[in-house]
Amino acid sequence: MSGAYRYRRRGFAHERELARKLWSLGFAVMRAPASGSKAKRTVYPDVVAIMSGDVLALEVKTCKRERVVYVPRAQVEKLREFARRSGGRGFVAVKVVGTGKWRVLPVEELEETSGGNYRVPIEKLRKSLRIRDLLSIVRGARSLDEFFEREQSQR
Amino acid sequence: MSGAYRYRRRGFAHERELARKLWSLGFAVMRAPASGSKAKRTVYPDVVAIMSGDVLALEVKTCKRERVVYVPRAQVEKLREFARRSGGRGFVAVKVVGTGKWRVLPVEELEETSGGNYRVPIEKLRKSLRIRDLLSIVRGARSLDEFFEREQSQR
Repeated sequence: MSGAYRYRRRGFAHERELARKLWSLGFAVMRAPASGSKAKRTVYPDVVAIMSGDVLALEVKTCKRERVVYVPRAQVEKLREFARRSGGRGFVAVKVVGTGKWRVLPVEELEETSGGNYRVPIEKLRKSLRIRDLLSIVRGARSLDEFFEREQSQR
Repeated sequence: MSGAYRYRRRGFAHERELARKLWSLGFAVMRAPASGSKAKRTVYPDVVAIMSGDVLALEVKTCKRERVVYVPRAQVEKLREFARRSGGRGFVAVKVVGTGKWRVLPVEELEETSGGNYRVPIEKLRKSLRIRDLLSIVRGARSLDEFFEREQSQR
């Protein structure tokens, strides 16, 4: 195995962790292939999780501690296109390495920057979903809107 | 890039071709990651295609010309588990390299061998679906049962 290949593999540790967690919750899960020149990674979200026809497309981000997280425009467009075709929903999943916790935000909640890219403001990151909340959402126990309204009044 | 890595990459050419064709038809498509020791490939089908909540999990096989195609039991179980969780359907997609054509068979149509594995009999391979037929099926224009009954009386 070449050094470059090993290096890329390390970058996927968080994607693998997210995939494992979603699988444990009962989702059918698939990670994207390594982004090589031929893989045309641009059309794939990092992780796709499906339960009984409900499709979640997730882009994975990491940060050391809770802070504003930036997402390039191309990644947001990829999520939206995959969600549109699949009839599903797009999310940004942020691993906060310092706390070890995941935060998940629907792509609609991202804010556009003046440069045409996107960001998750820190207050939205703090109020966003945990991985387990995705289960309540696909099961229809709680809608996304309901979740965000309740959370905003509680926290 | 190491020789071993290059070799594995070549094996994915048919999976990439199938993914591209399904994407062109309008599906949201994802290929599985390379099967490394950490990838736990066993739980992923080779290709997943989704349209408006309809999920197709596909395992890719190749043969030089139309012949009986064998599928290991573990691959069939993987397809079934993915289909069960996702609420979708499992298929074996066979690339007949000599003719350049694809044949697609629902996993339910496979026959169990005495050794506990599965096979696609040659007559079923000849009568099976083309990639484009998957579109009629997810759009609900034709059910799988309908397709197989009609085809069997016609061919």
